[in-house]
Amino acid sequence: MGLDYRVRCCPDGLVTDRRRRIKVLDCTIRDGGICNRWQFDEDLVQRTFQALTQSGVDYMEVGYRTSDGVYNRDEVGPWRFCDEEDLARVVAPGKMKISTMLDIGRVELADIPKKTDSVIDVIRIATYAHQMDEALRLADHAREQGYETFMNVMAVSVLEPEEVDAFLKRLAVSGIDNVAIVDSFGALYPHHVRYLVRKYMNYLGEDIKVGVHFHNNQQQAFANSVAAIDEGVDFVDATVHGMGRGAGNCPLELLLFYLDNPRYDVRPVLELVDEFANLRDSLRWGYHLPYAITGFFNIHPRTGIERMQRPDRYECRAMYENLSPRLDAASK
Amino acid sequence: MGLDYRVRCCPDGLVTDRRRRIKVLDCTIRDGGICNRWQFDEDLVQRTFQALTQSGVDYMEVGYRTSDGVYNRDEVGPWRFCDEEDLARVVAPGKMKISTMLDIGRVELADIPKKTDSVIDVIRIATYAHQMDEALRLADHAREQGYETFMNVMAVSVLEPEEVDAFLKRLAVSGIDNVAIVDSFGALYPHHVRYLVRKYMNYLGEDIKVGVHFHNNQQQAFANSVAAIDEGVDFVDATVHGMGRGAGNCPLELLLFYLDNPRYDVRPVLELVDEFANLRDSLRWGYHLPYAITGFFNIHPRTGIERMQRPDRYECRAMYENLSPRLDAASK
Repeated sequence: MGLDYRVRCCPDGLVTDRRRRIKVLDCTIRDGGICNRWQFDEDLVQRTFQALTQSGVDYMEVGYRTSDGVYNRDEVGPWRFCDEEDLARVVAPGKMKISTMLDIGRVELADIPKKTDSVIDVIRIATYAHQMDEALRLADHAREQGYETFMNVMAVSVLEPEEVDAFLKRLAVSGIDNVAIVDSFGALYPHHVRYLVRKYMNYLGEDIKVGVHFHNNQQQAFANSVAAIDEGVDFVDATVHGMGRGAGNCPLELLLFYLDNPRYDVRPVLELVDEFANLRDSLRWGYHLPYAITGFFNIHPRTGIERMQRPDRYECRAMYENLSPRLDAASK
Repeated sequence: MGLDYRVRCCPDGLVTDRRRRIKVLDCTIRDGGICNRWQFDEDLVQRTFQALTQSGVDYMEVGYRTSDGVYNRDEVGPWRFCDEEDLARVVAPGKMKISTMLDIGRVELADIPKKTDSVIDVIRIATYAHQMDEALRLADHAREQGYETFMNVMAVSVLEPEEVDAFLKRLAVSGIDNVAIVDSFGALYPHHVRYLVRKYMNYLGEDIKVGVHFHNNQQQAFANSVAAIDEGVDFVDATVHGMGRGAGNCPLELLLFYLDNPRYDVRPVLELVDEFANLRDSLRWGYHLPYAITGFFNIHPRTGIERMQRPDRYECRAMYENLSPRLDAASK
């Protein structure tokens, strides 16, 4: 079949099979919520659920499950906690699975009820490599409670190769269902992604799916997803219109265009973009120079986020020079 | 050397040589000028020339050379004409070469003076494949007048493979110096780019350099440039902060980050971005849903540009459905 009305000068046949086997995880409310402290209108969360269901997206990650008391409920919206009664008002059991993220240190085993008492299908654990003991403890418990268990090992771009080997060896025998390559800082180029996909897949074998979660600091979130798809990953994370902290994520609409899979219908997502584009105009995620610089230097985006609050936000030469160890003092 | 302070988990060695052989052509004033009808403050054009010179960029394309009378000079800025006396106020001979674009039907042979009477080094001809006779006539004349001659064959994404073969065969024996792969509509994915780079290089051989000129409708302008670099092209076009019609171009700052070449200094470009980012806030180039849709459907961005003027600019479901021949009438 191919996209016969698209690029005429190059047939698409070689990539079609790889594109069509991908599963899509939307994390707009979870990751995008970092932009607005999860203070979405409940109506928008409901409509996001409905549109994603209609579009055929495979997983919707609604937010974080967090222990009561960790955040002030006056300062963050309900999707930082994902209490069952809140979830039940916005999602319903159906063909699209519901995921909730846990992060280390903000959740206890007691916060994970039995699967039969929850609308959640997937518990996804966000961890740094050095927190792997606790991450596996949570994953083991979640699996015993009846959930699919996914793991996002964050900020892989700052690890030494041996550190990546070490956590992959542990995950390979952990019973986890899915491990995502996570470019927390938006530092990776496609050649890094291709190498990491090979490495993760080689360690994790056939029983553990490999996903990707990319940030857009250097306008590579979608392109890195394409590179990962080309190397054979199983899952891609995306958000509506790329909503996410700092430069944001892989835009779901671009991903669905690319996948060219009749299983997905991009049109309900396009309707959502209308509302999220207006949110973007106020929350200002996307490509901005301070985020490009933190991505390039492979550091946490907070330096860029702080700068974006300032009137001199785009005056970034000094920011660049301060971050660059290769520039000697004389040339600054 | 490699970028030892960047991504730690993956060595960069394999791509370093290919990155460092690239030459960079900045076309901010020429292509970005389509956004503001070339009505830049003259001071900004001067500072752009100075910053690009300091950064080590190889070519600066200042605008179009156009016959007198084709445009009303009250409605477009001087860089739509590039008269020698205007050019002489903003650029000076030096290590950075100056390029000016010609487009078919808006220029005569008499508009191309002898090289010795001009500050221009490179005449670049923008043509559609079906205008190749006239394009080669201009190129022959420009070469006889003493210029380097480059050619951008636009909108390759809508040609049949045989049409690409046909113009490449002619260009291979044309005496031209450089031919760019031009994704006018922002429709190409990296797998298309890789295929086209092979095709262009195979036809054009060692004596004709291959360049790329990409648009960012689907957030692929920089990523497609990276793919082209990886396949071995010689030249990449970019603009400051991606300034360009519709979704814009490959951002020069991201390209210089990636090239990792001590020959380039990104810092003067970062200072320019400060000003161009404010221009972007008013002219609104960059990633917007109407441009993503025209890119996906491989059509001219004018449909998206018109829509971006409307208050309902992001309500794009109907736009998508009207463009989609694969959706039967019943499902619309």
